Amino acid sequence: MVSKGKELSSFLLSFFPNSQKIYLKGDNPGVNVPFRKIKLSPNSGTRTSEPSYFYSYDTSGPYTDPSSGVEIGKGLFPLRAQWIQQRGDCEFYEGRILQMKEKGRLPDAQKELAFKNGQLGLFNRMPLRAKAGRRVSQMHYAKKGIVTPEMEFVAIRENLGKKDCSLRRGEGFLYSQHGGCSWGASIPEEITPEFVRREVAAGRAIIPANINHPELEPMIIGRNFRVKINANIGNSAISSSMSEEVAKLLWAILWGADTVMDLSTGKNIPQIRELIIRSSPVPIGTVPIYEALEKVGGVPEELSWEIYRDTLIEQAEQGVDYFTIHAGVLLRYIPYTVNRLCGIVSRGGSIMAKWCLAHHQENFLYTHFDEICEILSAYDVSISLGDGLRPGAIADANDKAQLSELYTLGELTKKAWEHDVQVMIEGPGHIPMQLIKENMDLELRHCFEAPFYTLGPLTTDIAPGYDHITSAIGAAMIGWFGCSMLCYVTPKEHLGLPNLDDVKTGVIAYKIAAHAADLAKGFPGAQLHDNFLSDARFHFRWEDQFNLSLDPVTARSFHDENLPQPAAKTAHFCSMCGPKFCSMKITEEVLKYAEEKNLALEDAFEEGMKEKARQFNQIKNIYI
Amino acid sequence: MVSKGKELSSFLLSFFPNSQKIYLKGDNPGVNVPFRKIKLSPNSGTRTSEPSYFYSYDTSGPYTDPSSGVEIGKGLFPLRAQWIQQRGDCEFYEGRILQMKEKGRLPDAQKELAFKNGQLGLFNRMPLRAKAGRRVSQMHYAKKGIVTPEMEFVAIRENLGKKDCSLRRGEGFLYSQHGGCSWGASIPEEITPEFVRREVAAGRAIIPANINHPELEPMIIGRNFRVKINANIGNSAISSSMSEEVAKLLWAILWGADTVMDLSTGKNIPQIRELIIRSSPVPIGTVPIYEALEKVGGVPEELSWEIYRDTLIEQAEQGVDYFTIHAGVLLRYIPYTVNRLCGIVSRGGSIMAKWCLAHHQENFLYTHFDEICEILSAYDVSISLGDGLRPGAIADANDKAQLSELYTLGELTKKAWEHDVQVMIEGPGHIPMQLIKENMDLELRHCFEAPFYTLGPLTTDIAPGYDHITSAIGAAMIGWFGCSMLCYVTPKEHLGLPNLDDVKTGVIAYKIAAHAADLAKGFPGAQLHDNFLSDARFHFRWEDQFNLSLDPVTARSFHDENLPQPAAKTAHFCSMCGPKFCSMKITEEVLKYAEEKNLALEDAFEEGMKEKARQFNQIKNIYI
Repeated sequence: MVSKGKELSSFLLSFFPNSQKIYLKGDNPGVNVPFRKIKLSPNSGTRTSEPSYFYSYDTSGPYTDPSSGVEIGKGLFPLRAQWIQQRGDCEFYEGRILQMKEKGRLPDAQKELAFKNGQLGLFNRMPLRAKAGRRVSQMHYAKKGIVTPEMEFVAIRENLGKKDCSLRRGEGFLYSQHGGCSWGASIPEEITPEFVRREVAAGRAIIPANINHPELEPMIIGRNFRVKINANIGNSAISSSMSEEVAKLLWAILWGADTVMDLSTGKNIPQIRELIIRSSPVPIGTVPIYEALEKVGGVPEELSWEIYRDTLIEQAEQGVDYFTIHAGVLLRYIPYTVNRLCGIVSRGGSIMAKWCLAHHQENFLYTHFDEICEILSAYDVSISLGDGLRPGAIADANDKAQLSELYTLGELTKKAWEHDVQVMIEGPGHIPMQLIKENMDLELRHCFEAPFYTLGPLTTDIAPGYDHITSAIGAAMIGWFGCSMLCYVTPKEHLGLPNLDDVKTGVIAYKIAAHAADLAKGFPGAQLHDNFLSDARFHFRWEDQFNLSLDPVTARSFHDENLPQPAAKTAHFCSMCGPKFCSMKITEEVLKYAEEKNLALEDAFEEGMKEKARQFNQIKNIYI
Repeated sequence: MVSKGKELSSFLLSFFPNSQKIYLKGDNPGVNVPFRKIKLSPNSGTRTSEPSYFYSYDTSGPYTDPSSGVEIGKGLFPLRAQWIQQRGDCEFYEGRILQMKEKGRLPDAQKELAFKNGQLGLFNRMPLRAKAGRRVSQMHYAKKGIVTPEMEFVAIRENLGKKDCSLRRGEGFLYSQHGGCSWGASIPEEITPEFVRREVAAGRAIIPANINHPELEPMIIGRNFRVKINANIGNSAISSSMSEEVAKLLWAILWGADTVMDLSTGKNIPQIRELIIRSSPVPIGTVPIYEALEKVGGVPEELSWEIYRDTLIEQAEQGVDYFTIHAGVLLRYIPYTVNRLCGIVSRGGSIMAKWCLAHHQENFLYTHFDEICEILSAYDVSISLGDGLRPGAIADANDKAQLSELYTLGELTKKAWEHDVQVMIEGPGHIPMQLIKENMDLELRHCFEAPFYTLGPLTTDIAPGYDHITSAIGAAMIGWFGCSMLCYVTPKEHLGLPNLDDVKTGVIAYKIAAHAADLAKGFPGAQLHDNFLSDARFHFRWEDQFNLSLDPVTARSFHDENLPQPAAKTAHFCSMCGPKFCSMKITEEVLKYAEEKNLALEDAFEEGMKEKARQFNQIKNIYI
């Protein structure tokens, strides 16, 4: 694989023919919001004033910008650095010095070197944190009435640059959209920076953006915004390497992942993470208990608050944007899982359960939650409150264990907000369709509309190998009902670590689910993409149909399997029905026929109907 | 590919390791209902009285029965022949002699020979039809209070042999199920033959079963039964051959297609169909207008009622079980499609629209509907009332054209029922999620609960190449809301003719959707499959987990990609998380820990909580 500059971006853009990276400027200096502009061919059909391009939300970062000069492994330009520093409320410092005790327990002793002065050697940087007594979270600013450049950035992004692009070009047919059913969401016609601020202040949305991740292109997660998707990457003890994980990151964001979680549990966790963060234009999430567990040789009982706290600080210094923290797995809830079909299926949940059981003590993530929030507010790390007791089987859905934990997550949400820490709530898991809405409604009520972030849910257990589909069904539904971000599930779920193909398949299945949810909620402008694509389809603009699709290369290759000739790209049929049976071709002829007769089609029929009515009257007469 | 006997069945069964074909007998002679029995390994876990096998609904017919001696191309044993003949209401006859006029128009003149004496030469058989003045439909018998062997067959099938198999073996944990939300369906705890009769008599369910298709294993389509799926096969003028289409049939039913539609539009339509029907244990549907159009050289204007009627009779004589008839495409509705984004996308709909327009006359399928019903009731061909004006884009969903046609289909339903013709109603298409339920509710109301049979619906237009997923979302939802059969969509939809891989992918995506719908409706026993699989998963019975899945070979191959060693099949982890982070392994340890301490887990926690409470009290004291 090519690794730098124009070669790299040409390679990546080759998956999206006729696409080009463009930026729209905001009012704040340095606010340049990326979009993928898809150039369309002129319409040969009967309609007028066709658009010549379409703007697509773009998560792929500078990698698809030939002018960015980006190189894999060298890190991205820190576009937020000036915004962060101009706020004047944080400072560089030496970073945490790793304790000898921990070092000795790292899987590989020579890794000490990498931790020298809190840095990893790979990138020469010092960490930032809030000055004493200050808070630097987007929620903190939002509550104070400050509209940050990050907020302006996401507003422009959510609008798909409405002011400047295709969304504004027409008023007619292609721009109409079905009324949505938003189940109580309040989505405005246009997302303004001030609206973003209000939502963040209210806790209804988060902008995960660690001050140590200045490379990040801000995005927002909330019920009144586009539904987002997360892709999980990361190695396990069994499989995968560092360069593989960075390749997965690039691959995931190329296809549309809005955030990426690094769930590495094997060797070299800090190194992999450092490389991922420096390379990522999207927020990076982690589950810090995984690394903490590595530090104690994989024995949950030996975990302690001190080891965990230090892990949090190290990762916050590196720039992780959100932490999954299983603080709701309370000692008293664990017995509720005993009679489940699948017990505890969250890794973090089972680790904490084992710790609680071994010590007969309350979960230290719960008892130290205020300290956790203090740390996080100094870096603007968001909390993703983990659902350690989520159901891992249809049978276990919406049970006492799951719901008890959910109520506790609500309590913790309030506490985090007191510290101005941004919060989202993780959700299941395996849920049959009839119970999905209950999940969403309980979350909204008990967690005060904090964004919900669910894994699927899978709507049946019977299809290992196809859980991207079992779960895309549930994901689309819960996204419609109000879920803000959908964590993807790949075909390998339950079976093994996903490879690049699986990552892509998972991301596309979830882009489908998220977009279907946006349509159903009635997100303004969401249907434009469908309309543009269907218009291209109806007018046999095959190239445009391919290029507007989520995966142009696959769409084209499927078409070309039977009709590879270049002429077929302008043919008014495909191999599915052949030329004589193409309904759209016949419809086209119907329209043409009316045109030739110089009649509005309605009039042509009016004529026909008169004749028909006359016939009917004659028949009546016969019976009379 | 092997083509006969034990070799063939071994080949096909190799996709389902540890599976075996078994039959359960009914009270009527010759009622032997097939199931796939999946043998499970003994459970090494902590629970008792585990089942050792699971019964799965089996659509694969005699092909997976090593004792059937079936050969591809030689046709199946006519298991229904005795039931049909014993009713004494039909007779063999010479069959229709093909008119010279039609012969001349057949794409290949030498095909005349094949039509000699109404037969195709391939199989030496004479057609059956009702004696003069008699009706032979399942609905006719049902209305008269007769419970046919076909009805007993489907009752046993729907119950998954409840009386004899795994469903009855346990009363405990594994056999419990969430309450469903059936949206007004009335599903009994056990499906009895009398219940089947009542549903068929009321028109709420159909048993498509042409008396000329005695090879068929009866199945039922209705809201109060398991949700079914249909797979489309058939060549087009561009692609595919006869043997390919039979391979697709076998492939589709092996993976679980409940009915198959032969949508051939190219050469050799009658020959392909004859071979498919004689080879099919599942009902075969067709769209007769396609063949009629071939007869007139592909020019819709030249179609006539006479040519169409003769086509119906020929296909009824061959044994087609249901016809899609686009009788609701009325002249006055066609102008409603002019301002659509995608016009008319149904092939049948566009053909009829063109005919109506050219002749300025009402659709002859509508004006001759009574005659159609008379023909169909003489063979027990069911009608699938085609939705010729279904939306082909999200923008066109639930519009005036679509709904006007739906109301007309309701009117035609009543008319068909007067002739004791079994009816189902075809539905869309492309529908955003928030409009799906409206579709279902309107169908139930205006078509008097006749079974709904939908294509998807696709919930977004933006993912050509992945429309099995965009539509599985809609299919699962509409199945839950009351749709009786889901017509699959393959990844090739909109792009080309599906190959064998696409057929399989489409069928599995739809098996997922149908099962998710059964779960959500609360179909009795549906969750057992999920429970068995999750139980195997939790106890690391990898082989059982694979074998219980919809596609065992794929599940196994995904697992083996990273862990091919035989020992990994009994390992208590997989490559997804590795041994240290397997939540289920940790949970297992938690359970074991409690056992070792000789404590009920609740008691262990009770202990722990007492200690905890004491600590809390101490803390309080400090603050006081």
